[in-house]
Amino acid sequence: MSPETQPEKVGYAPIGVVASSFNEPGDPKAMRNAESTLILDEKYVVAMDGLDRYKFILVIYHIDRSPGYLERVHPMGDQSIPERGVLATRSPCRPNPIGITVAEILKIEGNRIKVTGLDALNETPILDIKPYEEHFDSPVGIEREREPGYRPRDA
Amino acid sequence: MSPETQPEKVGYAPIGVVASSFNEPGDPKAMRNAESTLILDEKYVVAMDGLDRYKFILVIYHIDRSPGYLERVHPMGDQSIPERGVLATRSPCRPNPIGITVAEILKIEGNRIKVTGLDALNETPILDIKPYEEHFDSPVGIEREREPGYRPRDA
Repeated sequence: MSPETQPEKVGYAPIGVVASSFNEPGDPKAMRNAESTLILDEKYVVAMDGLDRYKFILVIYHIDRSPGYLERVHPMGDQSIPERGVLATRSPCRPNPIGITVAEILKIEGNRIKVTGLDALNETPILDIKPYEEHFDSPVGIEREREPGYRPRDA
Repeated sequence: MSPETQPEKVGYAPIGVVASSFNEPGDPKAMRNAESTLILDEKYVVAMDGLDRYKFILVIYHIDRSPGYLERVHPMGDQSIPERGVLATRSPCRPNPIGITVAEILKIEGNRIKVTGLDALNETPILDIKPYEEHFDSPVGIEREREPGYRPRDA
């Protein structure tokens, strides 16, 4: 068991794309306040069944316009903050340019999910979406698992 | 702009592996309460610099022992809960078997990060780690971005 026994590359086929009015990196605040649409491949409509019971989802996407890997960066691109290792930041310049954001579902129609809160550019490939579950997605879950009687409940 | 113009597959080289005493799927509660170690490739030690300022990280991993894609599943494998679309669950049987969990950092030594809260099996390939930021990783961030004066602060 060591990093040297690592498997080859892993490959994922995008399940859809982001439609947004932002075609290049800009003000993250404006991007997240805007509405975007997740357009999934038609073949995933059945796999989307039940998403309407959630208000928030994790959107996992491929940062296809990442500038490339950098070992160290200024957090949030702010030159006034000292550089640190890229894995200790949310910079896109990571070894594997995977983006993750919590987005709010506004409307679901067929293979389209209208959201707000997303910071992905137009035509960004979507790799996965997951219902946001406080139990898995926040420090709260780690504490809850320590309670002997706790069992996660279904949403 | 449509799913038909999607790029080919995207490929990622794992940045490390999980060391855990769990070699096959078991009680998720026991797994998350146990300690695991993230062993990153030595070449990422510089990229890890600064992680010590965080208490929680997102661990993004390849579910290499996923049973494969299923359109619909019982949430949490519980037959008493009606099936729904896999994308509306946290099941590993998703189109792209990407796992995401928030883990608590217990100790960092060189290329090794000891954590608790992780639900990944021994030798699971790690694709990325990110500092947990409430702003990006919880519904709170979407609300905050709506406040005109809000700017995320550095950790």
